[in-house]
Amino acid sequence: MEEPTGWLAVVRDAFSAIGILAFAISGALLAVQKRMDVVGMAGLAVVTATGGGMLRDMLIGATPVAALVDWWMLAVALGGALVVLALHRWMERLDRPVLVFDAIGLGIFAVEGARKAIEHGVGPVGAAFVGMLTGIGGGMLRDALANDIPAVFRRDSRLYLLPALVGSSGAAAAVALGYGHWLVLAIIAAVVTALRIMSELLRWHVPALKTEAIPTIRD
Amino acid sequence: MEEPTGWLAVVRDAFSAIGILAFAISGALLAVQKRMDVVGMAGLAVVTATGGGMLRDMLIGATPVAALVDWWMLAVALGGALVVLALHRWMERLDRPVLVFDAIGLGIFAVEGARKAIEHGVGPVGAAFVGMLTGIGGGMLRDALANDIPAVFRRDSRLYLLPALVGSSGAAAAVALGYGHWLVLAIIAAVVTALRIMSELLRWHVPALKTEAIPTIRD
Amino acid sequence: MEEPTGWLAVVRDAFSAIGILAFAISGALLAVQKRMDVVGMAGLAVVTATGGGMLRDMLIGATPVAALVDWWMLAVALGGALVVLALHRWMERLDRPVLVFDAIGLGIFAVEGARKAIEHGVGPVGAAFVGMLTGIGGGMLRDALANDIPAVFRRDSRLYLLPALVGSSGAAAAVALGYGHWLVLAIIAAVVTALRIMSELLRWHVPALKTEAIPTIRD
Repeated sequence: MEEPTGWLAVVRDAFSAIGILAFAISGALLAVQKRMDVVGMAGLAVVTATGGGMLRDMLIGATPVAALVDWWMLAVALGGALVVLALHRWMERLDRPVLVFDAIGLGIFAVEGARKAIEHGVGPVGAAFVGMLTGIGGGMLRDALANDIPAVFRRDSRLYLLPALVGSSGAAAAVALGYGHWLVLAIIAAVVTALRIMSELLRWHVPALKTEAIPTIRD
Repeated sequence: MEEPTGWLAVVRDAFSAIGILAFAISGALLAVQKRMDVVGMAGLAVVTATGGGMLRDMLIGATPVAALVDWWMLAVALGGALVVLALHRWMERLDRPVLVFDAIGLGIFAVEGARKAIEHGVGPVGAAFVGMLTGIGGGMLRDALANDIPAVFRRDSRLYLLPALVGSSGAAAAVALGYGHWLVLAIIAAVVTALRIMSELLRWHVPALKTEAIPTIRD
Repeated sequence: MEEPTGWLAVVRDAFSAIGILAFAISGALLAVQKRMDVVGMAGLAVVTATGGGMLRDMLIGATPVAALVDWWMLAVALGGALVVLALHRWMERLDRPVLVFDAIGLGIFAVEGARKAIEHGVGPVGAAFVGMLTGIGGGMLRDALANDIPAVFRRDSRLYLLPALVGSSGAAAAVALGYGHWLVLAIIAAVVTALRIMSELLRWHVPALKTEAIPTIRD
């Protein structure tokens, strides 16, 4: 395992930027649906795009968190809000590219999150958790601020958390066992992206208990 | 004050595990009521069971946070979701044991949270706050993600925050004054547990202002 | 740039206390509107008043966070809840003072947040973000716990985030360029306060996209 450098770091950051852009677009779109103004669009874009990484860094103690140091992340996130402002009439046609970009982001965030956690002294199980949260945390914060139940938890939602967990577990295991070469991690990220896209195309979802099966909890 | 070791640490962790299990069950139950799928059940169980400790460790700077290092906590939390999956038809009969387990968790989290905060250089008042938050923070995150107002803040809710605050204040004072022996802390935790159970049995609650008494805040 | 000391620190803390009081009052008022009990009033007051600073300190790694060390902040926040309890019949007449106090808090939190971030090694862009979040973060947590969309993101809301961002950007630039004298920072904070009050009096707000312009996002 090693922190990538040189052109490898550039490639990784380029893929991260693709993910940040897609996450930010999903935040800005939800902001409009929830009747927020352009400040809300920008704010929810930034939260969605950088929130998962911020949670990761606060939990593992990698402070100041990455988005404050590598502030191009904040800029790309604001770019996502601008994309929605400029192209909102054509967002329906952008559905597919945004899905693919989002899936690319999920892959790289899950894998990089797990790698970074191990680098900061977290064991493999904890690192698998952190990587998964890096991928889904921004969307969870987005939904919480928009007054929605997290999309990844909702009944009939397509798989999102599980592909991230597969990738973060794989990356954590690879790094812990000494196979943390960038090529291995890139392949694992690609698997996450593929699983996520397939779950959408093939409508994969997990079961749910019937609500009536559960008695009301006392207040 | 000292970090417990040996069999004392085992006993403390055993009581913590009881609390984590109960907290996780409350998260998984709410997930079903809110129409989440099994991923949501597992996710909300983990958030409820480990969220308070994660908030504590991020606020005092004890990173990586405990649940990432002692990953048995994540496993026990997932076990709570499994309990709901397996026993949901009989949850009503499990009401009482879950209440008692939850109260045990509240006691140990409040006391241990205050002790850990002082160990990390926080003064007694701050430590009392941190201990209280360790006890109630997971449930607050659970309710925020489930789109509910925190149960501990709701009108006509039974006492929950106050028993935690009594315990965390007592523990902070005991440790700060040099009486942080494990037996003292165990007795304080037991008092929290007893107060919490009594508040449920005797329907203790605090008053509330009439809503009409308050003018609408400007947007 | 330097951490203020002596009477300067006292003056800064006095203005901070004014802001903490106003933020706490807004939290306690919303708690009553949302049908919470007095525990909820105290809890939401503390979250609103200290949440922004806690987010700041967790993101930049200044732990234990300030409100745990300088526990007078917790005391002043509880004082805000007491003000609402005691004076709720006259809150409408207190509208104007609370607005002014809140604007004073926004100014000092935005400026001090940016200064503290730079002190902890964050660059100017990241520090501008952190300062802004210090000012608005407590209110966002308040709204999230009260099950509302953040007021600062809502359509037709008056400017709140933007004055904070102007101030945090100005403070970050001033400190980074070596002009971080307390007098410069105090003037910037006063500008934030003035902008915020003017935005309320003159009903400044930013535009919003029409909700129908956006297709529904897939789940």
